[in-house]
Amino acid sequence: MRIDGAAYRTIWPEGDGVVAIIDQTRLPHDFAVVRLTGLEEAAHAIRAMLVRGAPLIGAAAAYGVALALRADASDRGLERACATLLATRPTAVNLRWALERMRGLLAPLPEAQRVGAAEAEAAAIADEDVEINRAIGLHGAALIRAAAERKAPGEPVNVLTHCNAGWLATVDWGTALAPVYAAFEQGIPLHVWVDETRPRNQGASLTAWELKHHGVPHTVIADNVGGHLMQHGKVDLCIVGTDRTTATGDVCNKIGTYLKALAAHDNGVPFYVGLPSPTIDWTIADGVREIPIEERDGREVSELTGRTADGRIETVRVTPDGSPVANYAFDVTPARLVTGLITERGVCPATRDGLLGLFPERG
Amino acid sequence: MRIDGAAYRTIWPEGDGVVAIIDQTRLPHDFAVVRLTGLEEAAHAIRAMLVRGAPLIGAAAAYGVALALRADASDRGLERACATLLATRPTAVNLRWALERMRGLLAPLPEAQRVGAAEAEAAAIADEDVEINRAIGLHGAALIRAAAERKAPGEPVNVLTHCNAGWLATVDWGTALAPVYAAFEQGIPLHVWVDETRPRNQGASLTAWELKHHGVPHTVIADNVGGHLMQHGKVDLCIVGTDRTTATGDVCNKIGTYLKALAAHDNGVPFYVGLPSPTIDWTIADGVREIPIEERDGREVSELTGRTADGRIETVRVTPDGSPVANYAFDVTPARLVTGLITERGVCPATRDGLLGLFPERG
Repeated sequence: MRIDGAAYRTIWPEGDGVVAIIDQTRLPHDFAVVRLTGLEEAAHAIRAMLVRGAPLIGAAAAYGVALALRADASDRGLERACATLLATRPTAVNLRWALERMRGLLAPLPEAQRVGAAEAEAAAIADEDVEINRAIGLHGAALIRAAAERKAPGEPVNVLTHCNAGWLATVDWGTALAPVYAAFEQGIPLHVWVDETRPRNQGASLTAWELKHHGVPHTVIADNVGGHLMQHGKVDLCIVGTDRTTATGDVCNKIGTYLKALAAHDNGVPFYVGLPSPTIDWTIADGVREIPIEERDGREVSELTGRTADGRIETVRVTPDGSPVANYAFDVTPARLVTGLITERGVCPATRDGLLGLFPERG
Repeated sequence: MRIDGAAYRTIWPEGDGVVAIIDQTRLPHDFAVVRLTGLEEAAHAIRAMLVRGAPLIGAAAAYGVALALRADASDRGLERACATLLATRPTAVNLRWALERMRGLLAPLPEAQRVGAAEAEAAAIADEDVEINRAIGLHGAALIRAAAERKAPGEPVNVLTHCNAGWLATVDWGTALAPVYAAFEQGIPLHVWVDETRPRNQGASLTAWELKHHGVPHTVIADNVGGHLMQHGKVDLCIVGTDRTTATGDVCNKIGTYLKALAAHDNGVPFYVGLPSPTIDWTIADGVREIPIEERDGREVSELTGRTADGRIETVRVTPDGSPVANYAFDVTPARLVTGLITERGVCPATRDGLLGLFPERG
């Protein structure tokens, strides 16, 4: 996607053992490209969340292996690279997947061929993510186009999204936002309601930033607002991402997604989920009962970081000293509230049969 | 209610032309009592929201008239006091009501009697608010007691509330929180989930503060969390306040209330509204269509104020420069999602018949 007119991905090789990333911890107030030149820098970038979002983490880990092998292409160097990178975000499924793919390819090769093969494979992992997301975008854009055709000519389609499942969470395009970008490229008039997404504010800080810099009309709202907007016909469809989708179509996503799905259902607003098929967990049938929900540090709720009027970055406490805080990171939206799943193979109902229709090899 | 063991109201006369208030703009980080000695100080306290909450605004305006008359008890002084105070918060219904009551009483009196009569009437307005809220508390506490009896002995009843309808919003007790305080006084074990309540954070900054200092167990959560908690049986009942309730039981309250009511309905969790009967608008039947929703300054969304680690109060921006922001202050929860209305006369269904059963004089 574009930043003020220039095309970017979230990660790109610059040659000679340099891989560039956008430091997402400094958004939205500061756009900074960081250049990674070795294993420790790559591991730090993932651990400290300079890069985040499952697909981007996978690509960053793959590039991290390639950087590590430039210093030490031995078996021991390969093992050390994989172990170091795996430990950065222990629960990230894409991280493990990317590292196993890299190791499986590289371990049998002679040392002299490993750096070149690693760089090519990391590039392939990145390109594959882009292609999956581009396909999600095209399938989802058709839904936005259909909504546009139900409106007066030129009137924008209002899309509501939660959290950041945009291009910053992937290598490019995003998942939930890929349909938005694809529709925007097709010239369909649209406007995005951006949920702030407390407590980590990924909507206000990342989704708003990427839409603004790509030029997509949008408005930031508190998470509390979506229901009111839907009651008054101001949302045509919702599109969110997902961290994990069950074989029956239950959707685990950022905390608060369930509340928006309830409001959509109550007001007849279609509620779609954009997902690359690797996030489908074919082993789980009941998302509410079976998916454990991570509880994170309460300081994400009690403290907020932003920029002061004179440009300093400050962290401030917003709760009383001594008041306990709870921080559940995700919730599960039951499939009955989901209008459809937008995958790289097309759109299907949020049911086992719907998913198997697109992915018959899982039947 | 109590602040660390000492009994307080939100406003109290200290004699000799001094009225004390708690400066709520400095909560939760700083507890400061401000002493008002004249009309301009009283008007400033209301205008700058040192005092807020409809019932408290009414009482503060009444005391403001009394303070003003000490300086000028003439007809002109009375008119000037009422006009100045009315202009502080033009849309506050209680403000107008309290000022009309004061003027109606005071205008016919000789000047020499006006100060004493004004002080007595302001005290009466404050006491009446306390009595209404105490009655709401007793009726609502019975609901909490009934919930406690459905649980294992000693297991706390989990109440979820949104925004601040606690004692800080009234003269004492609060409306939504009056049942919590009454149940707590009765020794019923309970715990309150406190919605942060973006964008103005009245839950995190005021509700948490008053519960903490009164000693009521509570936990602050992001507004996104309530649905997840209800899915997992962690909420026994919701109690919220209201700014305006229709004759048919639709409830206009702080933005986001509707989303919690949807989640409660989806999970079979009772959803109650605590309200003093003056907030019932008997002229309106359809809240969603007929109640205009105030749009406030977007900076309430894009900027946040809190305390830094070294104790400074700072305001920080959390959205990208140039990203538009919308700030709808209230939403309407349809009566079909409301289990019951807790009034000073008892609990009734959120229906026209239910309300007329308690308030037959409105039939």
